[in-house]
Amino acid sequence: MRGIARLARELGVSTATVSRALNGNPNVNKATREKVLEAAQRLGYAANQAARSLAQGVTHSVGFMIELDHESTTSTDYFFMGVVEGMQAVLAAHGLDLLVLPCAKSQDNFTFLQRFVSRGAVDGMILAETRRIDRRIELMQSSGIPFVTLGRSDSGGGYSWIDLDFEGVMATAVDRLVGQGHRRIAVTVPSNDANYGTIFAQAYQDSLARHGLAFDEELVFPTRRREDDGGSLVDGLLDRPDPATAIILFYEVTAIGIYRRLAERGLTPGRDLSIIGFRGEESVRFLAPQVTCFHMSLPDLGTAAARALLAQMPLTAPAFSSGVLQRRVPLSLVPGESDGPPASGVR
Amino acid sequence: MRGIARLARELGVSTATVSRALNGNPNVNKATREKVLEAAQRLGYAANQAARSLAQGVTHSVGFMIELDHESTTSTDYFFMGVVEGMQAVLAAHGLDLLVLPCAKSQDNFTFLQRFVSRGAVDGMILAETRRIDRRIELMQSSGIPFVTLGRSDSGGGYSWIDLDFEGVMATAVDRLVGQGHRRIAVTVPSNDANYGTIFAQAYQDSLARHGLAFDEELVFPTRRREDDGGSLVDGLLDRPDPATAIILFYEVTAIGIYRRLAERGLTPGRDLSIIGFRGEESVRFLAPQVTCFHMSLPDLGTAAARALLAQMPLTAPAFSSGVLQRRVPLSLVPGESDGPPASGVR
Repeated sequence: MRGIARLARELGVSTATVSRALNGNPNVNKATREKVLEAAQRLGYAANQAARSLAQGVTHSVGFMIELDHESTTSTDYFFMGVVEGMQAVLAAHGLDLLVLPCAKSQDNFTFLQRFVSRGAVDGMILAETRRIDRRIELMQSSGIPFVTLGRSDSGGGYSWIDLDFEGVMATAVDRLVGQGHRRIAVTVPSNDANYGTIFAQAYQDSLARHGLAFDEELVFPTRRREDDGGSLVDGLLDRPDPATAIILFYEVTAIGIYRRLAERGLTPGRDLSIIGFRGEESVRFLAPQVTCFHMSLPDLGTAAARALLAQMPLTAPAFSSGVLQRRVPLSLVPGESDGPPASGVR
Repeated sequence: MRGIARLARELGVSTATVSRALNGNPNVNKATREKVLEAAQRLGYAANQAARSLAQGVTHSVGFMIELDHESTTSTDYFFMGVVEGMQAVLAAHGLDLLVLPCAKSQDNFTFLQRFVSRGAVDGMILAETRRIDRRIELMQSSGIPFVTLGRSDSGGGYSWIDLDFEGVMATAVDRLVGQGHRRIAVTVPSNDANYGTIFAQAYQDSLARHGLAFDEELVFPTRRREDDGGSLVDGLLDRPDPATAIILFYEVTAIGIYRRLAERGLTPGRDLSIIGFRGEESVRFLAPQVTCFHMSLPDLGTAAARALLAQMPLTAPAFSSGVLQRRVPLSLVPGESDGPPASGVR
């Protein structure tokens, strides 16, 4: 507790107040809490905590911070559960427990992370859903606690990350559709502020440009991870002077609503509208015609992230090739029957 | 560290060895680890750790132990994510962070829990997937750390639990089917060792008995949470001298495979086979005809579990009505079109 005593002396408050502030106790007023957290970071308190944890190996735990909102918790997608399976297995084999740390979208994600860092609650950390500018990365770097992110960011520079190869997926999808004869290709992007949305949209623009196709922002549709969003999408795509003939989906579940609306309009997926999904999701596996999509293993993604972290942790690093790892995981195309040459009438 | 020093003296080993053993470090041999853990429990070390955590409020964290296998992590069901959403919100409002602790099915769940208890890593614990006999409950009781289980058990006696009202669901489903004229009613049960499977199967027997219907164990089908298991199920139900005319599903996703197989056989759900699902799952929402099922709110279930825990934690208990809470959460029937009077030909 010497670190806390030093902080208390510096700030002229009691050690109990410092302890409460560091632990996020709501009984400390906001101004005091901020003053303590600022001083803790300035005086390197968090870094010392972490160093102590590492030296003593007191936590034997790795945190995986995820963000929750009602959209993600009611989705039929099991992205996080699949990734956790892979992480957990690798970490357990090295005597480490995985703590999944759910932060609500309504909470401040920086303060949330800071609390765990200050407490020295984990020996390593994996962050998900990075933003384009993400202060959490600098927080982790100044903490001295080894970390990896699932997703890229413009913040931080030379840290380890694992991400999906959005660029490769988009290039393959656009090449395929252009090869089939499509010129009006739409795209859905996630309606949140995660960096993967920006990357996906940029890759779409780059791929169109490579084929000399004009970018039309009216063909970019922000969607939630909900089946329902597919219905209005179909109307938006087709009820226009120059209808789109193909669409690339960020959330593959959108295909369910698209198929339903196409059927209501007497149209057929793959003939009247070509559809390519980003990541093969279990919930669309039974759609007919089968959705053309990309395959990846979620547990393998979790495994890769855990290994990148172990490569940085003092007790396990010797067993891994060292250095910063920045890796885009490739996905492979699984051809279905939801895409093909555009119907001449619609085109 | 006085607790550790006392343990080390008692056992004639170094404090480093005790620390490593308590933290689950794989470098301690199995015999030593077990000796240390046994002594820690016998001497009340874990309880002291917990008492210290509570007095100082050092963790401000609540653990939620879940169990992972490839079946659950690749399922389109979001049971845990939904429950976590509710828990997290209530705990955050009381200044507590939720740590989701995933234990692989391949790990020993007792040792896993013991590690977190011994470390004093949490101020409270919520356990899921209770077994009929579940040693984890006695472990928590002897630890002195407040806890709640999601699910009942024959172990432990007077502790707080929240569970689904399997009995009420089954009674309603069987009453409804019998009222429609069904006499040969099948059921699916989970193919794992969780207590909810036993409770669901027992409720099925009790409900049949209430109507004077014979129990036929050939109408009880263990299934995984997989769409695919529905196909063989249909054959097993119908290709017999006295076919079943109705089925009650523990995992509602099974309906997807059932619908597909019925279509392949030229049969119609609701007419040739009546189907009632247990819990309305997002992934079957788009099936036609709509599946008759029961509704519940997963976040509300998480909220109820978190409140039952807060009612036992020293810092928050004053704000809650005290005492042990043992509560079955009711589900309400949402009539669909997947059930109805049996077709006279099949019957």
